[in-house]
Amino acid sequence: MSHTYVYSFGAGEADGSGDMKDVLGGKGAALAEMTLAGIPVPPGFTVTTQVCNLYSAEGSVPPAVREEQSAALAALEDVSGRKLGDPDDPLLVSVRSGAKFSMPGMMDTILNLGLNDRSVEGLAVKTENRRFALDSYRRFLQMFGNVVLQIDKDVFEHELTAIKKERGVVLDTELTTQDLAQLVETFKARIKETSGEEFPQDPLVQLDMARDAVFRSWNNERAAFYRRQNEIPDDLGTAVNVQAMVFGNKGPTSGTGVGFTRNPSTGDHEFYGEYLLNAQGEDVVAGIRTPHPLADLEREMPEVYKQLREITGRLETHYRDVQDFEFTVEDGRLFMLQTRAGKRTAQAAIRIAVDMVSEELITKEEALLRVDPEQLDQLLHPRIDPSAEVDNIATGLAASPGAAVGKIVFDSHAAVEAAENGEKVILVRMETNPDDIRGMDASAGILTATGGMTSHAAVVARGMGKCCVAGCSSVEIHEKDGFFKVGDRRFERGDVITLNGSTGEVHAGAVPTLEPEMSGEFEEFMSWADSIRGMRVRANADVPKDAEQARAFGAQGIGLCRTEHMFFAEDRIPWVRQMILNGPTAKSLAKRVAALEADLADAGGARKGMLEAALKDARAALAEPQRLFDEAVAAMLPLQREDFRGILAAMEGLPVTIRTLDPPLHEFLPNKEELAIEVALLEAKGGNASELESKKQLLRTVEELSEFNPMLGHRGCRLGISFPEITQMQARAILEATAALLKENVRVFPEIMIPLVGDVREFRHQRALVDQVAQDVAQSTGVDLPYLVGTMIEVPRAALTADEIASEAQFFSFGTNDLTQMTYGFSRDDIGKFLFEYLDLGILDRDPFVSLDQGGVGQLVSGAVAKGRGARPDIKIGICGEHGGDPRSVDFCFRNGLNYVSCSPYRVPIARLAAAQATLRHQKEDAERA
Amino acid sequence: MSHTYVYSFGAGEADGSGDMKDVLGGKGAALAEMTLAGIPVPPGFTVTTQVCNLYSAEGSVPPAVREEQSAALAALEDVSGRKLGDPDDPLLVSVRSGAKFSMPGMMDTILNLGLNDRSVEGLAVKTENRRFALDSYRRFLQMFGNVVLQIDKDVFEHELTAIKKERGVVLDTELTTQDLAQLVETFKARIKETSGEEFPQDPLVQLDMARDAVFRSWNNERAAFYRRQNEIPDDLGTAVNVQAMVFGNKGPTSGTGVGFTRNPSTGDHEFYGEYLLNAQGEDVVAGIRTPHPLADLEREMPEVYKQLREITGRLETHYRDVQDFEFTVEDGRLFMLQTRAGKRTAQAAIRIAVDMVSEELITKEEALLRVDPEQLDQLLHPRIDPSAEVDNIATGLAASPGAAVGKIVFDSHAAVEAAENGEKVILVRMETNPDDIRGMDASAGILTATGGMTSHAAVVARGMGKCCVAGCSSVEIHEKDGFFKVGDRRFERGDVITLNGSTGEVHAGAVPTLEPEMSGEFEEFMSWADSIRGMRVRANADVPKDAEQARAFGAQGIGLCRTEHMFFAEDRIPWVRQMILNGPTAKSLAKRVAALEADLADAGGARKGMLEAALKDARAALAEPQRLFDEAVAAMLPLQREDFRGILAAMEGLPVTIRTLDPPLHEFLPNKEELAIEVALLEAKGGNASELESKKQLLRTVEELSEFNPMLGHRGCRLGISFPEITQMQARAILEATAALLKENVRVFPEIMIPLVGDVREFRHQRALVDQVAQDVAQSTGVDLPYLVGTMIEVPRAALTADEIASEAQFFSFGTNDLTQMTYGFSRDDIGKFLFEYLDLGILDRDPFVSLDQGGVGQLVSGAVAKGRGARPDIKIGICGEHGGDPRSVDFCFRNGLNYVSCSPYRVPIARLAAAQATLRHQKEDAERA
Repeated sequence: MSHTYVYSFGAGEADGSGDMKDVLGGKGAALAEMTLAGIPVPPGFTVTTQVCNLYSAEGSVPPAVREEQSAALAALEDVSGRKLGDPDDPLLVSVRSGAKFSMPGMMDTILNLGLNDRSVEGLAVKTENRRFALDSYRRFLQMFGNVVLQIDKDVFEHELTAIKKERGVVLDTELTTQDLAQLVETFKARIKETSGEEFPQDPLVQLDMARDAVFRSWNNERAAFYRRQNEIPDDLGTAVNVQAMVFGNKGPTSGTGVGFTRNPSTGDHEFYGEYLLNAQGEDVVAGIRTPHPLADLEREMPEVYKQLREITGRLETHYRDVQDFEFTVEDGRLFMLQTRAGKRTAQAAIRIAVDMVSEELITKEEALLRVDPEQLDQLLHPRIDPSAEVDNIATGLAASPGAAVGKIVFDSHAAVEAAENGEKVILVRMETNPDDIRGMDASAGILTATGGMTSHAAVVARGMGKCCVAGCSSVEIHEKDGFFKVGDRRFERGDVITLNGSTGEVHAGAVPTLEPEMSGEFEEFMSWADSIRGMRVRANADVPKDAEQARAFGAQGIGLCRTEHMFFAEDRIPWVRQMILNGPTAKSLAKRVAALEADLADAGGARKGMLEAALKDARAALAEPQRLFDEAVAAMLPLQREDFRGILAAMEGLPVTIRTLDPPLHEFLPNKEELAIEVALLEAKGGNASELESKKQLLRTVEELSEFNPMLGHRGCRLGISFPEITQMQARAILEATAALLKENVRVFPEIMIPLVGDVREFRHQRALVDQVAQDVAQSTGVDLPYLVGTMIEVPRAALTADEIASEAQFFSFGTNDLTQMTYGFSRDDIGKFLFEYLDLGILDRDPFVSLDQGGVGQLVSGAVAKGRGARPDIKIGICGEHGGDPRSVDFCFRNGLNYVSCSPYRVPIARLAAAQATLRHQKEDAERA
Repeated sequence: MSHTYVYSFGAGEADGSGDMKDVLGGKGAALAEMTLAGIPVPPGFTVTTQVCNLYSAEGSVPPAVREEQSAALAALEDVSGRKLGDPDDPLLVSVRSGAKFSMPGMMDTILNLGLNDRSVEGLAVKTENRRFALDSYRRFLQMFGNVVLQIDKDVFEHELTAIKKERGVVLDTELTTQDLAQLVETFKARIKETSGEEFPQDPLVQLDMARDAVFRSWNNERAAFYRRQNEIPDDLGTAVNVQAMVFGNKGPTSGTGVGFTRNPSTGDHEFYGEYLLNAQGEDVVAGIRTPHPLADLEREMPEVYKQLREITGRLETHYRDVQDFEFTVEDGRLFMLQTRAGKRTAQAAIRIAVDMVSEELITKEEALLRVDPEQLDQLLHPRIDPSAEVDNIATGLAASPGAAVGKIVFDSHAAVEAAENGEKVILVRMETNPDDIRGMDASAGILTATGGMTSHAAVVARGMGKCCVAGCSSVEIHEKDGFFKVGDRRFERGDVITLNGSTGEVHAGAVPTLEPEMSGEFEEFMSWADSIRGMRVRANADVPKDAEQARAFGAQGIGLCRTEHMFFAEDRIPWVRQMILNGPTAKSLAKRVAALEADLADAGGARKGMLEAALKDARAALAEPQRLFDEAVAAMLPLQREDFRGILAAMEGLPVTIRTLDPPLHEFLPNKEELAIEVALLEAKGGNASELESKKQLLRTVEELSEFNPMLGHRGCRLGISFPEITQMQARAILEATAALLKENVRVFPEIMIPLVGDVREFRHQRALVDQVAQDVAQSTGVDLPYLVGTMIEVPRAALTADEIASEAQFFSFGTNDLTQMTYGFSRDDIGKFLFEYLDLGILDRDPFVSLDQGGVGQLVSGAVAKGRGARPDIKIGICGEHGGDPRSVDFCFRNGLNYVSCSPYRVPIARLAAAQATLRHQKEDAERA
């Protein structure tokens, strides 16, 4: 028989095979494969994907399809011993879509096809269950009406609700046989009324109509959208699978169940699942009857159990992975309805992967590719007990994984206080700022109303390994009045809430959580990953504690040590503010002095005298601010030296990349708006004049330093250029700490990183300062200093001119947070206003602050790598944006030849595995090309 | 004689010629050329640039140079009739640098070389002026000591000051002959002391040392920096010119003067200049003696005058440009010391160019290249009377040219009030915002303390053709207290100041200004430009008045009509606020309704009832904000329709690009900080509760909408995607206006421009809305609508993915303001904090918001043009950033094949000329290549 359009399967024979996914779709190919493997699956046939395309083009299927389909149907009737539409013992079939790639829930399915006014009675007799037969019929009418005839679901739901109301019952199962018979009639009447046609009683007509409806569903809106999202070509088409229905509710020798070949929670190698006798699939999951563990089946149906063990064992070996299967026993006969790779917890995934390697079922390489790196997060953080009931009140961004339970506080001060009293709190803020570091550290979790995946709260929380839900815009915070609202619900200061940082959910009350567990298998598994990957993994850490944590997670260095967090420590902030309040003043006065000196050089006569007087005044004005600025900078030196000593020592033997001061200075000063309110209130009260004057003076400084767009403002190397003293102080602190450690035989490798460079001349300016300091320190200590000076590539212009910059810089580190902000023009702190909308509309495939935008930002990255290596072939290149811990982005970095990725300490294991997977995929692609 | 290293000139003969700039440098070539043309220049010789490179490499000159130099010196002595070092009548020479490209003031010069203890006496006798001889000697010692021996200038200045103090005199000229003799001895002593060597008495030694010092000065820091700045290769080297000195102060038959071959202020064809008898060059400009007009020379030295007229006429014809010349008469003998193209006012430049074309001295093409496009600005704006005395108090950015005198006001309200009373005011603000439009319109000029060249104040002022000084950071504004301070000086509200928007200067009091004049020559000249250029010039204009102005200046369309300014009109702002205060609320409630509807579809039982109740509440809550939002949008439609009708009609026959709403919505709401202060004060006072509540509510909305980095926030097409109703309303207003005008036979060509697109999917979304509206309008009016839909390329990602975007967009317009902001990561409103510093340090060559950064941003522009044209060969591409009016940027746009540039109305003539020049330069390059 020729199989151009329709492929049969059943009774151990199949026209197709498992490698024909293009033709038969994934499901059709699997059905053929299982059948050929001697696994009992209900017989049926598959109409090919090609027919879908023909149907899409022509609006109908060619005559040849009809012919082949008739033959396949005859064969199916033959194998199953029943006939479609038989009034005594009807063959019922399911009609399902099945494309090459799984598109779960996107297309339509029709069950119980073959029922009509006569065959329903045959089914009633055969199953000795008239209620079941009528219920099957009304379900078929509903599905057929909706899917094939495109009648709104509500039409049927409305009738169902009406009859339940009439009978005074709540559940569908409370309806009587009589009620269902009435409903069948009503449904048929509504179908005629709405579609203008009678419900087709002829099962062959039903079948053709259902097939065509499935083809049409290939082009429905959600399927088309799903394909766009998942980059599935539109011209693949879907196959249609027509398969005999089997029933597990035919009596005590029938039944149905689900199971796994290994425990999906723990990974234990045990046969795991549940079943019910005389039941249909949905009964097992509906919770009305309590199902039995599969072990009991051995007692109740020993033959079936034996066969099931044998079959599922074979399936696991065949597919070389844990199987999640569904089966039905009809009159003592076992049918496999479905088998697929089983979803599993992270713990189970690792356990199974390691076990299967030792069972020699799979290779280490395959094992590594089996575990989703993102899943490892579960192993490193506490999580919500999946069995717990939750009262979900809002959903924001899953900004930092884990779970946290605590009392609501609205400011960092309260958080610190509560922590000192041993209380767990959740810090709830519009958005956090660097002032909140201590409060965040003291909290169990952080909830913010604005801000995206790389907002301050998100970045800092991830760095701390602390649970955070960010950008939860439905939370309306009334900070001063001590409560927040979500819709109509109000939560007071002190109320307990639970955060799920892995899903972004916020729950009312305390939800039970599970602590993370790390197993021996985890270490073994990760060691395989490390032996495969070439790309190194570093961590972003600012303090020794985090650096040690990162090292414990396998970090091979620090890729980003931000120095600004050090500036907020209590012993620093007075010096920092003294520095900031006097630096700009001193600077502008110094300029005036220089200008006057220049003028004076050319001047003569009366003008000369005037200028001399002005110069004297200017020099006098300059003296005090300059002294205070210099004093503050000098005071910072020993403190910073200790900071760097700590982090360098913690990473002995490994490189530590330290970034010079980055944020705009006003971030270290009091909030402008709050200060303005204070001044206004003081003025209104007519309070202490000198206090008012000093506040006003402070406000003026804050106003002068404040910026419209701080992200694009006076920050990064721009600060270091305006205030070379700060760069010099930081370089000196780093290099003096280095010299001291080296003298103690602690091997350290500092890499000094200049932020926000956009032009090679900025870098040259800063590097000259660092090199000069290094020369001084080397001379005064007699130590040979093994330092590097490099830059972040985070401004688009830096990427575009990377060749020029590489001629001066010894390393590049892609700051993909800023690079994404500037390339898209998205402020990470404001994107929450439209991000969800963009994702919903499919304008963005994913949050570009989570997963690197390879199409846009990626062009800048790969261009910069090429230009950088062109100018300096041995330049060390890494990435230290948040993307360094995202598996897709890690893969991109690998393909672009980066030397390392750097991410939050808690994402280091994820990056290690992702890097290994990238290597394996690359090797595979290479092998395929060869 | 062979001329490998040294080229002589003098007495009508020269070894070199005018086209040997590579070898002789610019000055050496010009001296050779003048000599060959029979023009009397003091004789001398040039040591070639090649020797400079040999010197740099070896540290000394080869013996062959010495030989050639000796021969050349002998020839010079021969021609001049004097000998170097002759104790009776010494030849004195100047030793000057002269590279291929002029590097004014960068390298060193030594005058009076050849003087020593003996020859100074000969000079005294010959000039009969011992004081002059001694003064020449001490100057030579000073220059030689500083330049050749590298002794600090201060060493000599100190001695000079000391002797003046001792003698109780102030001016150098008050020193006696005796004093000068003493100074000569002191200087020699100090030279020995400091350098450890005696001052060399041998003139030949002096000459070699001076020559080498000039060579060394090629590599001094400022020269190297200047070359980097001006992209002059380091390996060109400088030549050294040794030339006989002549003296105009030898008696009544000697003299010196300066002049122009045409009047440099008016362009009138008249011989113009001044001279003094028995004087040296510096006496003419020093202002101690009053020089005579050149016309008097005809009477005093008729022969010399005749010769001078003849020579300068020949020079003008030879160089085919106005000459600015210096001459000296020594004992009745005329020497030309210098001739160069004369600097001239804009008016003169146009007049001279047009005259020279009619005199057939130059071609129209040459005439066009002679005028600096930037200069045209002078012709279009009032300017400070150059002869006025000014009291300059501060200098900011020259943000919008022209001059303005007025009383200080600190807010827009006061500005409008003053204007209504007929008073001229200067609006002084930290920075303006869109609320200030009316106040800016009412002011004579605007002064801001922050903000760069493309800050709000700068952009709007340029659009209005109004004088503006921006980013004047030394101005410390105390707005509430009604004054500003600059250093110690205080200026009160109502005090008069004067702004010079062309230089950025702020002057105390009223400075006289000159009104612009446009001559007939201007029109003629511009018509030549228009006939040459291929690239079109449009204007950025938002209102019909500006559009008409632009048209009068020659604009060929509107390249950018911003619609947001329309939103601030008094009749709009209540509707705009109603729209903004309800839109986001309605939107979030609508989302909640949709979510509840979806939940309800799947729900059953008790949950269903709960959801139904919640849905009912949500729908009820949604009703009012939705109604208010819809009402406001509907109210805007007829108003916007009139706006667009006006501007489209004003540009009949020409295209008008209209941008949909761009700024973030909070820009239209009250200032957050001011509102927060109001609320705090109301709370403190315990005022009216309902007023407080409504203010609090408003504050909450403002807080919700406010952004950390508005430039990267919820704006541009992001707004149009969140609120499609706004895009639809604007599209409808544009297209209904179009339909109505077309029906009246007014030919209009609207181009609808979607701002801030970064991904083709954003554009697709917005274009679909516009096309749908267009279809509706076409159907309801029966008019065929000739509209285009395109996008700005202003986000780096748009440039990177321009191929994808071009597949959907019908035109591109580069928004280079935003593109520069994001490519550099510079906020145009904050760059003032470090821009000057960057320019001073040479980190930036020029303000990238004024002149397009071709090395970085330019890569994105040219890449996007290539990608865009690749995907859609006929795509129309323009630029509408502020760069569209900058000549360098216009040239860049031309080279990259843009169809048009668009700029402020007042810069349209500049762009027209710049475009013509770009065409001419390009043709020339093409011809040279061919």
